Amino acid sequence: MRVSSELRLDDGVVERVFLLGEIPGVLWTPASARSAPVPLILTGHGGGLHKREPRLVARARYTAAAYGFAVAAIDAPGHGERPRSPADERHRGDLRRALAAGEPVGDIVDAFLGPLVDTAVPEWQATCDALLALPEIAGPVGYSGMTAVGVALAVLEPRIAAAVFFGQGFVPRPQREQARHVSLPLLFLLQWDDAGMARQPILDLFDAFGSREKTLHANLGGHAGTPWFEVDDTARFLTRHLR
Amino acid sequence: MRVSSELRLDDGVVERVFLLGEIPGVLWTPASARSAPVPLILTGHGGGLHKREPRLVARARYTAAAYGFAVAAIDAPGHGERPRSPADERHRGDLRRALAAGEPVGDIVDAFLGPLVDTAVPEWQATCDALLALPEIAGPVGYSGMTAVGVALAVLEPRIAAAVFFGQGFVPRPQREQARHVSLPLLFLLQWDDAGMARQPILDLFDAFGSREKTLHANLGGHAGTPWFEVDDTARFLTRHLR
Repeated sequence: MRVSSELRLDDGVVERVFLLGEIPGVLWTPASARSAPVPLILTGHGGGLHKREPRLVARARYTAAAYGFAVAAIDAPGHGERPRSPADERHRGDLRRALAAGEPVGDIVDAFLGPLVDTAVPEWQATCDALLALPEIAGPVGYSGMTAVGVALAVLEPRIAAAVFFGQGFVPRPQREQARHVSLPLLFLLQWDDAGMARQPILDLFDAFGSREKTLHANLGGHAGTPWFEVDDTARFLTRHLR
Repeated sequence: MRVSSELRLDDGVVERVFLLGEIPGVLWTPASARSAPVPLILTGHGGGLHKREPRLVARARYTAAAYGFAVAAIDAPGHGERPRSPADERHRGDLRRALAAGEPVGDIVDAFLGPLVDTAVPEWQATCDALLALPEIAGPVGYSGMTAVGVALAVLEPRIAAAVFFGQGFVPRPQREQARHVSLPLLFLLQWDDAGMARQPILDLFDAFGSREKTLHANLGGHAGTPWFEVDDTARFLTRHLR
């Protein structure tokens, strides 16, 4: 893991930009991590967002500063500063056109996100290995972010002890089928008026998770409209399960 | 308002049992109310539960002690220590039989809960008048409890500034129709596996509320299985809107 910049922010949080092989990432650690190791939250994102996207950064810094977690973000393959393949570009175009035309997107999602999930999971696992080797970070690990990658990671990576998924309809078939194997405590966030996402399949997905403790939080508004208080709810949920 | 007993509990909360006309109630006020007036939460219950029911009392005392709210409970007509009319007894029997037989209960709920709501709302309003006249209590007022009474109160009583409803299917037709007129910030708690309650009508009710800020929290488990952390979530939601 190669750290290319390290910045002490005014809330005491240290922000490190790193490269792990070809995976670009950012790590935020709270001031408290200098005296005792803190649990780690992996924060995944989708929709082509960059790991330095302002809302993601604001949530991560606040979660580190106010709740004392280390928070890491990486760019998934084809996301953020990573190159997009011709196939990525084609799938993105297909998805945009199908959504605009109100056509079903299941096959496009499978073709686009299926391979992304398959690559993202080992990348997150390698990131976990590297970050847990730092003296200021200890397990357990929580995940907060996009559902498709989160489901696969929750099933395959035993170090993940609790997860928060942003519920949306873009979940490839293999992950929808994996849902019943998810057994960790789960908080599932749903935007009630997410344009282009039918509500029922998301409720069905919540129903399908095998977890004995799972909670759904649904809020009014569109895809990007999750209220800020859910950042606190997410951090409190992870505090209950990671500390 | 006649106070029949006053007890200082070991968490600093003062518990007063009162009678307002023929309405029996309990008021819990936090230690902090002795120096400055605190907001009031009306906590309504259903299902024949007594205002001194242990879970209700535990939630109320904790909310007063940990969040500094005054919390009041009253027995609705035919509930707790109040006499049940022959009609109450008949409706309860009808409801039990229909639920056991898996038959639809809509007409029974309308006949049973409709008149209860009509009486409970002015009783809560009179309770509000009396409690807000106490020097240690100030507005605004929050409501936390059974949906049917809560909907009517939210629409009719302007002093209620935010409400938490325990989502369940036993909501009479007039209150289902009133739902779109509910405009205050709302937290709606749903038990995902509530036996005898279909999930869809409860989700439809959440959808129908006219509030611009509304959040649904759904948890696994049956009717009485709401996890304790929702007591904290409820108190934090009311703190956001009442302070």
